[in-house]
Amino acid sequence: MAVHEAERHAMTRALELAARGPRGANPQVGAVILSPEGEILAEGWHHGAGTPHAEVDALSKLHGDAARGATAVVTLEPCNHTGRTGPCAIALIDAGISRVIYALDDPGAASGGGAERLRGAGVEVEAGEQADDARSLISDWLTAQSLGRPHITVKWAQSLDGRAAAADGTSQWITGPAARADVHRRRSAADAIIVGTGTALADDPALTARDGDRLYEHQPIPVVIGSRETPTDAAVRRHPHEAVFYGTRDLHVVVADLHDRGIQTAFIEGGPTLASAFIAAGLADRVLAYVAPVLLGGDRLALTDIGVPTIEAARRLTIEEWVPLGADLLAVAHFTEPQSEGVR
Amino acid sequence: MAVHEAERHAMTRALELAARGPRGANPQVGAVILSPEGEILAEGWHHGAGTPHAEVDALSKLHGDAARGATAVVTLEPCNHTGRTGPCAIALIDAGISRVIYALDDPGAASGGGAERLRGAGVEVEAGEQADDARSLISDWLTAQSLGRPHITVKWAQSLDGRAAAADGTSQWITGPAARADVHRRRSAADAIIVGTGTALADDPALTARDGDRLYEHQPIPVVIGSRETPTDAAVRRHPHEAVFYGTRDLHVVVADLHDRGIQTAFIEGGPTLASAFIAAGLADRVLAYVAPVLLGGDRLALTDIGVPTIEAARRLTIEEWVPLGADLLAVAHFTEPQSEGVR
Ligand SMILES: NC(=O)c1ccc[n+]([C@@H]2O[C@H](COP(=O)([O-])OP(=O)(O)OC[C@H]3O[C@@H](n4cnc5c(N)ncnc54)[C@H](OP(=O)(O)O)[C@@H]3O)[C@@H](O)[C@H]2O)c1
Ligand SMILES: NC(=O)c1ccc[n+]([C@@H]2O[C@H](COP(=O)([O-])OP(=O)(O)OC[C@H]3O[C@@H](n4cnc5c(N)ncnc54)[C@H](OP(=O)(O)O)[C@@H]3O)[C@@H](O)[C@H]2O)c1
Repeated sequence: MAVHEAERHAMTRALELAARGPRGANPQVGAVILSPEGEILAEGWHHGAGTPHAEVDALSKLHGDAARGATAVVTLEPCNHTGRTGPCAIALIDAGISRVIYALDDPGAASGGGAERLRGAGVEVEAGEQADDARSLISDWLTAQSLGRPHITVKWAQSLDGRAAAADGTSQWITGPAARADVHRRRSAADAIIVGTGTALADDPALTARDGDRLYEHQPIPVVIGSRETPTDAAVRRHPHEAVFYGTRDLHVVVADLHDRGIQTAFIEGGPTLASAFIAAGLADRVLAYVAPVLLGGDRLALTDIGVPTIEAARRLTIEEWVPLGADLLAVAHFTEPQSEGVR
Repeated sequence: MAVHEAERHAMTRALELAARGPRGANPQVGAVILSPEGEILAEGWHHGAGTPHAEVDALSKLHGDAARGATAVVTLEPCNHTGRTGPCAIALIDAGISRVIYALDDPGAASGGGAERLRGAGVEVEAGEQADDARSLISDWLTAQSLGRPHITVKWAQSLDGRAAAADGTSQWITGPAARADVHRRRSAADAIIVGTGTALADDPALTARDGDRLYEHQPIPVVIGSRETPTDAAVRRHPHEAVFYGTRDLHVVVADLHDRGIQTAFIEGGPTLASAFIAAGLADRVLAYVAPVLLGGDRLALTDIGVPTIEAARRLTIEEWVPLGADLLAVAHFTEPQSEGVR
């Protein structure tokens, strides 16, 4: 059986509702309940981890037998597992829903299988309606889900010869205003922005995303990694979001915890030691290297050691784009080989 | 008075003749002697340092009074000084030449003033005919003349993070075939190709310019700088040109001697120590940096120390072109500030 026009409209609406929910450990999902005549009976969306799933949120707005014989239109396959909430498939069956339209299959091994369970209970199920839009809405969540950790971008600024600063440590204006504005713009799209204690102590960065003097509406959560204490009056403690401090150097512990906190995308903004450690650990997916047309020489390297003993082990990049920014050039790249851990 | 059509044709011919001469310490110059009726009486060109200048070469082909009342068409202002040959201005006056057309003013302080001397002797003089073509023919000579040394290009290949090799020294295939072919093509246009003894001993390079297995017709002269001996069976000793060895680290001595030898353009091909020394000494005009999309980390830097203590002293480059070469990117650049010596 095909998807009706009313159902199609309901899916578009469900996608709008989904986007109201927060980015986080759970995907953004929306749901609409339609009467057999195609009238909207109820709407719902997922409000974040620990709250009801979208279908259940929508059903909760109906009383008595109102959902009996109705159609549920959901942006993600109804789940089949008992987490903090019961399986949505059961909730739909119990409510008497007779037909379910969903966009995207549930990618989780534990939560998948909802469609099968619904069909087993005699519910009509149609999958794949507006799947592309649903996928693009939660693409960062899907990526983090498949990586088992946030998608990680390592960003740095360097001279053409790979230095982050001159011999005495000065580095102001290596790159120009267009490059710096680009950093802030991209930063504002990330869920978290991470630095090492070396940078936190040396530069006292605010770790906000700014458009000139104005803060961007979306601010990444600031994160500092390393055993040293960040001073109580540090700028990062005045960030709109409460900063997260990890007193460890075990980056696997860090990324697992970030994942649990619902961080889907993270920006590593240095310094050289921390950036190199992420790359060496195979925990970097993407690179943003802002290259200034300047030579510096000396010891202040933008990357230090990344665990490449010999040329065959070089960490090859696939350049997605070389972006001219004023006199500077930005390399946007991802690692060519699949990530694996440590030195190979 | 204007330049006649026959004189114009004669200048085009003189430029062809000039190009027959060798590149070297002297500029390439051509000359044509025309009868008052515009017939070619004689042709000449400069065959290289220590041989007659072009005008004198042309006059030498005429007997008796054949040049009396004739017109000399020369690509460069006739010289006015007594070097290994007498002043050409005098030779033209003595031969009875009554009119001189030349393309380019003589830029030399010692040799200039020929036009004035000719006019003083009652000779008609027209300057500037086809000056642009004449200038472009000897542009490298003019540059070397104004620098007082060869024009110097420092070339290197690096990973995005500025490394010339992996930790164990391996560096094969950092850059791809398109980049390597580009190096050879550009190398074949240089008068000399220079390496340090470190590279000569480590890599035993042939220092030839090759198109696949074939040698390019024009080969740069190979030069090795440093106190250590290059082995008697080194590949560079089998180069089509005899190699030049400088047992010094004083680069000013080296470039002065290369200038005396008539080297107008030189390519510094490493290693990192020598390339950095040329840049630090303010003896580098142009940079060719072949950047491979790969990260290496570690200690094998493409440039070492270039005498930049603080960020204000950064050696700024003006990028002429970013040239994509396969997966690699070539930065063609020159130093933005006028070159001065040592640390500023
Ligand atoms: N050019 C650029 O793009 C850029 C960007 C940022 C910073 N910088 C500059 O970089 C300098 C600071 O660089 P940095 O390299 O010293 O500092 P960093 O990378 O910010 O911090 C290094 C510290 O990170 C901690 N850390 C956490 N996990 C680690 C791990 N797995 N491996 C190693 N260390 C780990 C350690 O701190 P504990 O010792 O506390 O455990 C380590 O000392 C500053 O001068 C800053 O201005 C440049
Ligand atoms: N990636 C690339 O583009 C590239 C290109 C070429 C070479 N390489 C690699 O670089 C390595 C060799 O590099 P390198 O840096 O050791 O060798 P190098 O730069 O070729 O030679 C260094 C030597 O040059 C001599 N020298 C002459 N003038 C000098 C000056 N003003 N200052 C300092 N030294 C001067 C000194 O030799 P004496 O001690 O004899 O006086 C010095 O030891 C090789 O492994 C090679 O494969 C890479």
